Amino acid sequence: MTRVLYSLCGKDESRPFSPHCWKVALALAHKGLEFVERPYPFTAIANIEDGFSKTVPILRDGDRLVRDSFEIALYLEEAYPDRPTLFGGEGGKALSRFIESFSQMIVHMPVTKMAIMHIHDMLDETDQVYFRESRFERLGKPIEELAAEGEAERAAFASRLEPVRRTLHFQPFLGGDSPLFADYILFGALQWMRVTAGPPPLSQDDTVLQWFERCLDLYDGLGRRVVAA
Amino acid sequence: MTRVLYSLCGKDESRPFSPHCWKVALALAHKGLEFVERPYPFTAIANIEDGFSKTVPILRDGDRLVRDSFEIALYLEEAYPDRPTLFGGEGGKALSRFIESFSQMIVHMPVTKMAIMHIHDMLDETDQVYFRESRFERLGKPIEELAAEGEAERAAFASRLEPVRRTLHFQPFLGGDSPLFADYILFGALQWMRVTAGPPPLSQDDTVLQWFERCLDLYDGLGRRVVAA
Repeated sequence: MTRVLYSLCGKDESRPFSPHCWKVALALAHKGLEFVERPYPFTAIANIEDGFSKTVPILRDGDRLVRDSFEIALYLEEAYPDRPTLFGGEGGKALSRFIESFSQMIVHMPVTKMAIMHIHDMLDETDQVYFRESRFERLGKPIEELAAEGEAERAAFASRLEPVRRTLHFQPFLGGDSPLFADYILFGALQWMRVTAGPPPLSQDDTVLQWFERCLDLYDGLGRRVVAA
Repeated sequence: MTRVLYSLCGKDESRPFSPHCWKVALALAHKGLEFVERPYPFTAIANIEDGFSKTVPILRDGDRLVRDSFEIALYLEEAYPDRPTLFGGEGGKALSRFIESFSQMIVHMPVTKMAIMHIHDMLDETDQVYFRESRFERLGKPIEELAAEGEAERAAFASRLEPVRRTLHFQPFLGGDSPLFADYILFGALQWMRVTAGPPPLSQDDTVLQWFERCLDLYDGLGRRVVAA
């Protein structure tokens, strides 16, 4: 096996939780490419592949090393053009950046606040120290303070996904009749929540939750294999 | 000339303002298709082409009549496959629905509040009565009350466009190196604001405003030909 997805975990290797790594796991499955996943703690990432990248995902594909989830998806699309497409053409490639931006700017911060203490508690002691410090540096607040804002985020979460909900009125996946990388981008954010803090706060009859469940079922339940927190 | 875009205006026919009609105007120009635009007041739409549609845009293309901006773009893509693509493939088609949903759910309401009194004042008396009643029915508030919320919307407007801003960090248009229908969707919302209430409240160094200016320049300044209010 020459294909390795380096990803992120806490003390329990069987519960990888990085949103960006989940995007790549589904992208690889979408292309029908076998891979082994090797999850590392935060503070061990710098040692992967001789310090190739400060962040995961990292993909080793034979002789090639690629970092960054979007770059990896672009790489897979180019390297495996005969496998099912991740973008559905050049327009899909460009517009997937907008989905990524929506996910990063609108979905990631609420998930961070809802999940941050849960993530902390999943880490070993070395990672806990790193996590506290790096999040304070990035977000300007102690993780307890961010977590305290999580309750309000739970109440507002469904409304943030209105553009997704309206899109799903027209089609079963963001990518149309079947999923594209754009779906995996948003899936990654909700799966990050699900694995660390439990199911996203959406009602059972919400079409966004139904879409998420469909994504969990893809590729023999690749996402569902990790039980919800 | 057998190609007609039926659109929307107030008392001044030279200032069509419907966001959805602007999308189609740019889509036609993108395809290099000549057309004449025939703007009608709200209360005259029901008479266009023997009552073909309750809303504009309506496109007459020879024998064909098509309604709804997205449907018209899909029609043009199918009818004129040898002209420049509006979607860049099937993925772009599907993901353009997400851009449309973002524009409708995140951008249209603030523009409505910022522009509603200006739109009212552009209309003739018959349309003013219709506009007041239909907006009350749709939005549950008198237009004066909606307009009063406009100031707060001005202050928050730039932040609503964060996902657009981040996308433009990677590429000059939502569609990539050159514009696609996705760009015209968002352009339509900002042009609606510009023609009725003046330039969107974005700072000069905002990449979103710079993108909007690039869109105004497209096709010999098709959008710029109507001066800002």
